[in-house]
Amino acid sequence: MSITGEMIIGRRVLRGAAGELYSLEAATGKKLEPSFGGGQVEDVDQACALAESAFDAYRALPDERRAAFLEKIAEEILALGDDLIVRAMQESGLPRPRLEGERGRTVNQLRNFAALVRAGRWHGAVIDSALPDRKPAPRPDLRQRRIALGPVAVFGASNFPLAFSVAGGDTASALAAGCPVIVKGHSAHLGTCELVGRAVQRAAIACDMPEGVFSLLFGAGSIIGQALVENPAVQAVGFTGSRRAGLELVRIAQSRRRPIPVYAEMSSINPVFLLPGALAARAETIGRGFADSLTLGTGQFCTNPGLVIGIESESLETFVQAAAAALAVKPATTMLTPGIHAAYTKGVSRLEAVKCVQLAGKGVPGQGSNDAHAAFFRCAASDFLADPTLEEENFGPSSLLVVCRNLAEMRLVAARLEGQLTATLQMDDADVPMASQLLPALERLAGRILVNDFPTGVEVCNAMVHGGPFPATSDSRTTSVGSAAIERFLRPVCYQNLSASLLPESLKDDNPLGLWRLRDGVLARE
Amino acid sequence: MSITGEMIIGRRVLRGAAGELYSLEAATGKKLEPSFGGGQVEDVDQACALAESAFDAYRALPDERRAAFLEKIAEEILALGDDLIVRAMQESGLPRPRLEGERGRTVNQLRNFAALVRAGRWHGAVIDSALPDRKPAPRPDLRQRRIALGPVAVFGASNFPLAFSVAGGDTASALAAGCPVIVKGHSAHLGTCELVGRAVQRAAIACDMPEGVFSLLFGAGSIIGQALVENPAVQAVGFTGSRRAGLELVRIAQSRRRPIPVYAEMSSINPVFLLPGALAARAETIGRGFADSLTLGTGQFCTNPGLVIGIESESLETFVQAAAAALAVKPATTMLTPGIHAAYTKGVSRLEAVKCVQLAGKGVPGQGSNDAHAAFFRCAASDFLADPTLEEENFGPSSLLVVCRNLAEMRLVAARLEGQLTATLQMDDADVPMASQLLPALERLAGRILVNDFPTGVEVCNAMVHGGPFPATSDSRTTSVGSAAIERFLRPVCYQNLSASLLPESLKDDNPLGLWRLRDGVLARE
Repeated sequence: MSITGEMIIGRRVLRGAAGELYSLEAATGKKLEPSFGGGQVEDVDQACALAESAFDAYRALPDERRAAFLEKIAEEILALGDDLIVRAMQESGLPRPRLEGERGRTVNQLRNFAALVRAGRWHGAVIDSALPDRKPAPRPDLRQRRIALGPVAVFGASNFPLAFSVAGGDTASALAAGCPVIVKGHSAHLGTCELVGRAVQRAAIACDMPEGVFSLLFGAGSIIGQALVENPAVQAVGFTGSRRAGLELVRIAQSRRRPIPVYAEMSSINPVFLLPGALAARAETIGRGFADSLTLGTGQFCTNPGLVIGIESESLETFVQAAAAALAVKPATTMLTPGIHAAYTKGVSRLEAVKCVQLAGKGVPGQGSNDAHAAFFRCAASDFLADPTLEEENFGPSSLLVVCRNLAEMRLVAARLEGQLTATLQMDDADVPMASQLLPALERLAGRILVNDFPTGVEVCNAMVHGGPFPATSDSRTTSVGSAAIERFLRPVCYQNLSASLLPESLKDDNPLGLWRLRDGVLARE
Repeated sequence: MSITGEMIIGRRVLRGAAGELYSLEAATGKKLEPSFGGGQVEDVDQACALAESAFDAYRALPDERRAAFLEKIAEEILALGDDLIVRAMQESGLPRPRLEGERGRTVNQLRNFAALVRAGRWHGAVIDSALPDRKPAPRPDLRQRRIALGPVAVFGASNFPLAFSVAGGDTASALAAGCPVIVKGHSAHLGTCELVGRAVQRAAIACDMPEGVFSLLFGAGSIIGQALVENPAVQAVGFTGSRRAGLELVRIAQSRRRPIPVYAEMSSINPVFLLPGALAARAETIGRGFADSLTLGTGQFCTNPGLVIGIESESLETFVQAAAAALAVKPATTMLTPGIHAAYTKGVSRLEAVKCVQLAGKGVPGQGSNDAHAAFFRCAASDFLADPTLEEENFGPSSLLVVCRNLAEMRLVAARLEGQLTATLQMDDADVPMASQLLPALERLAGRILVNDFPTGVEVCNAMVHGGPFPATSDSRTTSVGSAAIERFLRPVCYQNLSASLLPESLKDDNPLGLWRLRDGVLARE
């Protein structure tokens, strides 16, 4: 599969005219061929106009057609073969097994959404039958279903060049909902974007989807992104990335004449609470597990454990020593981009310079210009509570242990933290009373609560919540992973006294789609 | 029941120290006794601090306790007896049967939410069992439920002093979700607010709810409202009112350090599309029905039919004549407030002055200073499309007929309109093909689509959507009426490997609450 540097607009490919962009080889920072043409506002307009024109036809397709399209995308991604993995390795610096695993996850995610579309729960069908004899006034026939919002703009993440990028979770869930998608390709992995984008385009053509159901644009800076979010055709935005960029997209979306929702997954340091019983029982095991989780993927996970909270004790020191020992033999590994590497190094230096913060452990420095090694710090809870900058995410394998004097201080830390994607409890049976006391605060803090596990690793399933209170995301009522991600792109519509000939299939009396429906207050498949 | 002019903060009542406020008698504009003390920012802080302290206890109550509380509120409102109706009549100018009906609706709404809480679907329970033998990695145990967002600020509407006010839909759905509520009482019906607020307070005490689950504040201007939306304890806002005020609340909420959702129901002109077959068959009936809907409650409904769209024909003229004849004998009626009356009169004068707009019919002028009569205008679609001000809501019994040359022009009008709460089709069997063509545009336009009915009258049921694209509401994915209104105040939380002793009842293996749950992909009550 050759990479041409072209963008995808509906069924066409074309080279952008606004300058040349290159992906950089993560390990060396050198330019990778070919160059990519940057898009212009006119390209955004064209892609959005096509998406708009495709929307009504696409959302009206039978569930089976959309499901088959999602499965065909998965098939076409697999058909890219090793070319995709090799290019993604070059561009991201991530190792082969990780990228092969991520491809599997991406493909499974598409298939899961296909299954979800077929299962039909997404319709949200509700029927309240007419009550012609009701007094004082009859009740009309009222039926509700959910429809797609409209074209969706997707901004991929640098840290998952497959699973959170061109055909990642946002794209899969938006397409599943019936929304055309326009992706702004991430500049850190342009070649990977093009390969996957062409796979989606091939699938769209093979499945005879309406033209405009998918487009892929490139562009340096923020011009293309801003134009996308401002375009009147776009009805929602999916984003994974930095807090600064996410908040900027929210601002643009709110400034439109007709504001639209932005689902931005932004910033999380994923606190891990070490309860005394767990530490007494297995401080060393927890220390080693923590070191593994911290350094996984060079710490470049949204769910990286960037904060650990414990109560001062001998076993807490055992944990620190075990973590430090494990980190001391962890080799440095390549970060995704020189920019991320520079920001990480700066973040570590910043922490090193803070008076109340001590270094507690570190990894093995590397040779490559873009290599990063782990950094583990500690400070007292009183100092942590006094300095809000200590709570800022430092994207990479850096973490801070906050040492509390007692449970009350631990609870205070939990209550003061900003919103998180995850919160983790390391606990033993003896810790149940303490955990019960912490749990309400953790529920308010995070989208996912883990026990005796580490937050890295996000299952794609029905129960998953990859979301959380601000600033973890811009909308705590949503998730960007798992089947509930589809709900971000749907809205309810109610039909009053619609004649049978006009009713959508999902709401017809005889339930031709065999859906679970809430019918006169009873959940039934009738 | 005496009205004292005091605010309610938790279990206390106190008189606000920031000046005196009076409700005005709608019919005369005269001050009604007693005076109300205006609240200060410190009162907001106290109410919010109490709400915050009540939150964890309140959301953790068994479903039955919250349901009983909602039912007790209904009972206490009924126990207010005729005092409530008499005061609401004075303050709102609405007639007795309307207010008695609205009281019934308010009470039923509270009971419906009680039933919804008991039914347990609100938990949104999902279980994905562990797969310890899965390759390459085992799947942990993952479970999801929904929890309440936190304290909610509610701003009532002037036009429903009972059903959209202190114990109206926003309050009922937020309390049902497990959120404490702080109401900013509407200055147009302060006495009604106090009576209902005291009923809620009595219910909270009788049901031994945590103190702070409900507070009611008064205040002139925007100081109290702004302080409420800015308070860090507040996690969501429910609002019904003008576009200007709604957008201001959204702006404040977005400017917080941690932004929160605002559910604002703002502006809608509820287009009615007259299809040719329906006009040919029953133009006069439609005209009379339209006149009734337009003048119901002096046109002061969110769903008032402020726009009619038809294709030029003889039968369209018959419709106009029938509507004009019906309006010509409709007496003027009292508006809610002098301010609303002044704005309506100004809006009518503005339309009268527009060159391309003609008067098509009007009601009987009244004697009272606050009386309003209907005004029915017409213009050509080409003029309507050229002048965006013709689409602005004029709250009251005013409507504009847009005359199209053909179906294409009608479709263009439908596609260009701003978001609406409702869109209505008057149609006959012969119109099905035309209706099918319009339907996709109407689905994108409105939250509710009606056939051969008029939009005034909003059922409280499972299938209702009282919401719609901007500017009808600030969040098209939600409804403020019907059982789905509860979802505005909930967010999902995922639990990974939580031990049985810590799991909430809704997610325990043996399903002690008997909930419908999505368990390993299958909807079941096991």
